[in-house]
Amino acid sequence: MIPSENEIDVVVKRAEAGFQFLQQCNVIERAKLMHTIADEIEAMGTVLIETAHLETALPVGRLEGEKVRTVNQWRMYGDAVRTGLYTEARIDQNLGGQIDLRKYNSGIGPVLVFGASNFPFAFSTAGGDTASALGAGCAVIVKAHPAHVRTSQLMADAIHRGISSYGAPAEIFSHVVSDSFEIGQQLVKHPLVKAVAFTGSFAGGKALFDLGQSRPDPIPVFAEMGSINPVFVLPDYLKNNAETFAKQYIGSLTLGQGQFCTNPGVLIGLSGERFDTLKAYLGAEIQTISAGKMLHQGIADHYIRLKNERVECDGVRILAQGKANVEEGFAQAILVEADAACVLTNPELLEEVFGPFGLVISCADRHEMEVLMSRLAGQISLTFAATEGDMREYQELFTLAQNKCGRLLFQGMPTGVEVKYAMQHGGPFPATTDPRFTSVGPDAIKRFIRPISFQNWPDEFLPKELQNGNPLQIERLVNQQWTKD
Amino acid sequence: MIPSENEIDVVVKRAEAGFQFLQQCNVIERAKLMHTIADEIEAMGTVLIETAHLETALPVGRLEGEKVRTVNQWRMYGDAVRTGLYTEARIDQNLGGQIDLRKYNSGIGPVLVFGASNFPFAFSTAGGDTASALGAGCAVIVKAHPAHVRTSQLMADAIHRGISSYGAPAEIFSHVVSDSFEIGQQLVKHPLVKAVAFTGSFAGGKALFDLGQSRPDPIPVFAEMGSINPVFVLPDYLKNNAETFAKQYIGSLTLGQGQFCTNPGVLIGLSGERFDTLKAYLGAEIQTISAGKMLHQGIADHYIRLKNERVECDGVRILAQGKANVEEGFAQAILVEADAACVLTNPELLEEVFGPFGLVISCADRHEMEVLMSRLAGQISLTFAATEGDMREYQELFTLAQNKCGRLLFQGMPTGVEVKYAMQHGGPFPATTDPRFTSVGPDAIKRFIRPISFQNWPDEFLPKELQNGNPLQIERLVNQQWTKD
Repeated sequence: MIPSENEIDVVVKRAEAGFQFLQQCNVIERAKLMHTIADEIEAMGTVLIETAHLETALPVGRLEGEKVRTVNQWRMYGDAVRTGLYTEARIDQNLGGQIDLRKYNSGIGPVLVFGASNFPFAFSTAGGDTASALGAGCAVIVKAHPAHVRTSQLMADAIHRGISSYGAPAEIFSHVVSDSFEIGQQLVKHPLVKAVAFTGSFAGGKALFDLGQSRPDPIPVFAEMGSINPVFVLPDYLKNNAETFAKQYIGSLTLGQGQFCTNPGVLIGLSGERFDTLKAYLGAEIQTISAGKMLHQGIADHYIRLKNERVECDGVRILAQGKANVEEGFAQAILVEADAACVLTNPELLEEVFGPFGLVISCADRHEMEVLMSRLAGQISLTFAATEGDMREYQELFTLAQNKCGRLLFQGMPTGVEVKYAMQHGGPFPATTDPRFTSVGPDAIKRFIRPISFQNWPDEFLPKELQNGNPLQIERLVNQQWTKD
Repeated sequence: MIPSENEIDVVVKRAEAGFQFLQQCNVIERAKLMHTIADEIEAMGTVLIETAHLETALPVGRLEGEKVRTVNQWRMYGDAVRTGLYTEARIDQNLGGQIDLRKYNSGIGPVLVFGASNFPFAFSTAGGDTASALGAGCAVIVKAHPAHVRTSQLMADAIHRGISSYGAPAEIFSHVVSDSFEIGQQLVKHPLVKAVAFTGSFAGGKALFDLGQSRPDPIPVFAEMGSINPVFVLPDYLKNNAETFAKQYIGSLTLGQGQFCTNPGVLIGLSGERFDTLKAYLGAEIQTISAGKMLHQGIADHYIRLKNERVECDGVRILAQGKANVEEGFAQAILVEADAACVLTNPELLEEVFGPFGLVISCADRHEMEVLMSRLAGQISLTFAATEGDMREYQELFTLAQNKCGRLLFQGMPTGVEVKYAMQHGGPFPATTDPRFTSVGPDAIKRFIRPISFQNWPDEFLPKELQNGNPLQIERLVNQQWTKD
């Protein structure tokens, strides 16, 4: 549906009714609902893949993989909900004449999700934000990403089939199609909306965050706003691994036309012979990379504009480029280089260029590398191409890194974000608006819960999660001990 | 110390250094530190109690109890840290050629704590905010409450003795004495401060929250800003309990001159004979209450001003008053009454009057009671003086209540906040700025942590909490199973 301004209120009020329903659902019921939705998404045939391919230019193989990931997310988050991990049931019984106190986590209220353009399945309408919000017990309103509206509608339909097949009211999920910025603003400002999830640009995310905080009642706005995901390549590692590393780095940088929030857009090393050798390998490698079509024309235009700005910056030199393609919407990969001194005086060079753009920074010495690390803004990830010898040698660098990011990598590349309990996908501002939470992995559910305590509450009126008999058989912290009894 | 504006920067940089130290401390070390501090507070003799009594006018017996509570908080939170509960270690091992990923919670950074006036021990310099922030691994800067500076200094000295006796650097705790609002603002705005905790007025808390959100990098500001803690008294309960309830309610309302954030400032019932009987009991009871001295003259003046405003509001009638005392700084308890219709058209009547002030609201019928419930702002607590029969009869009221507060009580009174795992002390805005967290109970530690993932990180360089051998013997989620192995 494409809502008029007046219809926004209707949508949100329906979501509030859906939330009232979900609040009465226990963890087993919510887990079943999530599995039912997963089944419906899985059952969708080639039309989903073909539609997404047409709308996003992403290759069929990648989309098929992303669909599997999306289905798995619903199931994994559902299983996580089922265990009661996010219920965090705590029971302090009435021992020795004190009060009986029980606490659990409930959904925070209707959640507004903005679909992202770069993952039309896994971070969009039926993506991790929607799955984790429903898992938390919240009704969801998705504002479809305008760049893949038909894909979004197919996903919304699948979710509604799942909801209907489970037997829940349709109100627990709403799909809003509009390319009007004002509609998004109105939704964020609506008093019944209680949290917002967004993945996209800094400008977009920060505007939504500010809007959420300026409401009469501020609400959490989880915006993931990108990152340059610096890779530090250290001398001992470089000694034997320059060639393989160059292939790995350029592969990660240009994967999916660099359209990942974990794209390693900056490479930092110590100037000298080894680093020069690496640069030669990097240059050779990127020249083999074909231009690819970007998600949509707007992203392609933005990429070209920022790339040109960087290239024109004093002190920045082109190291090498990928193959060109002058067709509309295609992105030519590029590596540029600069000295750390130049970067430190031009901090905009450390801002994200969304696409296959890499900046190679040469540091004069260890101190300059540490200064550069300390000047970094918050990042989703930081990667060290290092040996254990390097870790001993550059201890200060590793210590500084811990306060700069959500995920630290030893070797490997930051792209390929696995959906796991131990994943932290988020980082200090401006990578996200709230480094205390992740948007990937079951812990993403934590974003949409809030605790409620019940004091001396009669057993039969308690949520099942807190009743004496533990009918859902979840782990609970009873009188300071974890137990299912 | 009383800092000049320029010294603020020095204080915060020292705290950052302290934070770097704490980040290297594991949960066992932090727990030991907290116990050492607890011992030092416990060891303080009568000078602490006498100083606090002089500065706050709180009775010696109350202060002795609050000191015990404060010591217990440090120990309980320390024990909670020791278990690893808030570390939330998650390990997804390298099975089948995937990556090895490990995540744990680390301190968020230096935390700024504003001491509260109404609990000079338990919510002030050495209170729950400081204990939970240190437990999370954060250095703490306390801005002492100007109303009890000497008490605050004694507590700060005890904390420093504990830190020194444990062998940690003094930088992990700083004590700032100033009655300048600007100093507080500067501290909130300092780039190295990463979170703020405050308990006090709505105006103060909201101003700090806005300041925190308007920083170039917004930070969490946990402000607990008070509540009217409505008590709904239902007909079946009232049938047999009017007299005992009246004693209980007036006792709770006037306890400590009503200077608790859980003070039950509003009583709501259905008009009729039973409610009239209750009002008679309430009136008789409050007339027995002596005026007490308030925390400081500013609070007393504020109480008298707001009380007079309420009394002068059209439709508000005085039901009864406690004994008068014309001495400076004393508060005379008062009960006023109004019809729900009057309250619904004068919503300011539902704002907090900090002190022994109770508003008794008569609802014409069940519907009006539900409307009143739905109009309530977010509350710390909501209490039902009800029977199980009432719960069945007034189901809608109980459903509505769940989204209005952090703690639901069946009978009993909201004052007397027990420090337990299952305690939720917090509620939807404007009771607090973030209903997802509690400021009482070990879960208060959650406010000051953030997760960090380590991917393929060499074992010996991992924090002990995540190493293969589990040297700290904490519970961890390993490959989706809880274990100490």
